[in-house]
Amino acid sequence: MTTRLRGVLAPVLTPFDRKLEPDAGAFIAHCRWLTEQGASLAIFGTNSEAASLSVDERLALTDAVLAAGIPASRMMPGTGACSIRDAVALTRHAVSNGAAGVLMLPPFYYKGVSDDGLFAYYSEVIEQVADPRLAVYLYHIPQMTQVPITLALIERLLKRYGRTIAGAKDSSGDWNNSKAMIEAFGDAGFDVFPASESLLSNALAIGGAGCISATVNVNPSGVRAVFDRWSMADGPLLQRKADAIRAIFQALPMIPAMKRTLARFSEHATWSIVRPPLVAIDDTIANKLRGDLDATGFAMSGYPATDARQNITA
Amino acid sequence: MTTRLRGVLAPVLTPFDRKLEPDAGAFIAHCRWLTEQGASLAIFGTNSEAASLSVDERLALTDAVLAAGIPASRMMPGTGACSIRDAVALTRHAVSNGAAGVLMLPPFYYKGVSDDGLFAYYSEVIEQVADPRLAVYLYHIPQMTQVPITLALIERLLKRYGRTIAGAKDSSGDWNNSKAMIEAFGDAGFDVFPASESLLSNALAIGGAGCISATVNVNPSGVRAVFDRWSMADGPLLQRKADAIRAIFQALPMIPAMKRTLARFSEHATWSIVRPPLVAIDDTIANKLRGDLDATGFAMSGYPATDARQNITA
Repeated sequence: MTTRLRGVLAPVLTPFDRKLEPDAGAFIAHCRWLTEQGASLAIFGTNSEAASLSVDERLALTDAVLAAGIPASRMMPGTGACSIRDAVALTRHAVSNGAAGVLMLPPFYYKGVSDDGLFAYYSEVIEQVADPRLAVYLYHIPQMTQVPITLALIERLLKRYGRTIAGAKDSSGDWNNSKAMIEAFGDAGFDVFPASESLLSNALAIGGAGCISATVNVNPSGVRAVFDRWSMADGPLLQRKADAIRAIFQALPMIPAMKRTLARFSEHATWSIVRPPLVAIDDTIANKLRGDLDATGFAMSGYPATDARQNITA
Repeated sequence: MTTRLRGVLAPVLTPFDRKLEPDAGAFIAHCRWLTEQGASLAIFGTNSEAASLSVDERLALTDAVLAAGIPASRMMPGTGACSIRDAVALTRHAVSNGAAGVLMLPPFYYKGVSDDGLFAYYSEVIEQVADPRLAVYLYHIPQMTQVPITLALIERLLKRYGRTIAGAKDSSGDWNNSKAMIEAFGDAGFDVFPASESLLSNALAIGGAGCISATVNVNPSGVRAVFDRWSMADGPLLQRKADAIRAIFQALPMIPAMKRTLARFSEHATWSIVRPPLVAIDDTIANKLRGDLDATGFAMSGYPATDARQNITA
């Protein structure tokens, strides 16, 4: 097993061109900027529109980022899928390329499935991948999947697979759930990442591992500052500043609002494109977003403009 | 466009071997028996565990069934997927092989998506497939997807794409919704299939097109008899008989209960295997199922036993 990923991770937004094809150049540039700002890369999460990508598209983007020299040790690709075969293909590819871990959704089509069924699903993937380097992070996001990762399921998986079950992303938004996960399994080396930086100071104070949060895409250094300094004198102020940025995005459809913001700072208009069924925000909302951000002094320091990015892919 | 499919369709159960790989021989035998009993084939629906299959597995099984001589004109493959690219690949393959239609789930990962987003999704698939033979059946199954196909969305798609929008499968189980679909769009040639044979007589009486129902897998001739004779003297009796069989399966986890029943009548034990996250029924439940079915005189006439099926694949 490679060194565990802790800290601040972005579920990396995925850029598309006007034909809705993934834009590998813009993706690489965004990944590189995020790592330079102190964030690691949960590529292919919910905010990455991963569900709207084919398996082949996910593999190709991973290869492109690796070929660009972004270290696999900073990556936690999302590899969950409704089909075990897809999950195995994605997980095997991530592990064999040295990814620090994989973030695995449960199969999310069928509802009312039992913990027995979910245990069998994860077991099948783990045993088919059969690689001692595998580090699985369980992805609890019941508002999308309706298929919760219960404490009982985690306990059973830990008992059977030990350190292969490396942790969880808790996207429930329910602090009591994140707290319960950390308190129950933190001592066993199970790393819990809440999905919002708003919970970061609280989580770190009781042994959480960091956060994997949408808005790390636009505010990586601000969230990283909370991670680094939460227990210092300026910790509460840094937490409040990060919360204020998050609140602006959270009041809107977050994925399109963040993409519009990247379009603004990269001067690369196609960054605002989303794949259906998501819908881009309109200009009225975008103008309000711009004003709200400017009022906080928001900036994306060093964000590469179009030309710089094209150099990267040239 | 090929001739429209009407009547009775099975969302065809998918057999797996002990390694959880699709069993093409058993699948072909089951498809052939269903067509001989008067049912058509909605392969890769919810009851087919389609979400648990990869795109490649779905394409390979389709090719196997076609190579075995089962006519494409009897097929309505499920081709919906969260990813437009996957949906296009599956739909293009079905249409180019002459399938009568395709049954398309909406993208089902993201929740709270707008009709604008769903319209954009279906538009993108239709325009990328770009084949005048395409006949799309919209798949409304909110209890799994949480993403409803609203009447407003159907109206908008019909207005834009006309007869390409051929109909819908209504798996809501809500008769008022099926009735509203038929009344609103039946005259425009939009074919509505409720997902339970229990609604079949009622649907046919107001212009419905048939049904696409799980239990057609085990009782195709019984459901077909309702379709053929619902308005005749013995129609109500046939409806009650079909309802009685359905009620037995509906009281249990339906997919594993039907698969266990196919295992019994084919004498092919692996038919009872499901892919995780589904879980097979245990022997206690299976014995009760057997007893309940036997009490009704249930039989699967002419169902091919293992040897006969092996001849088919040999």
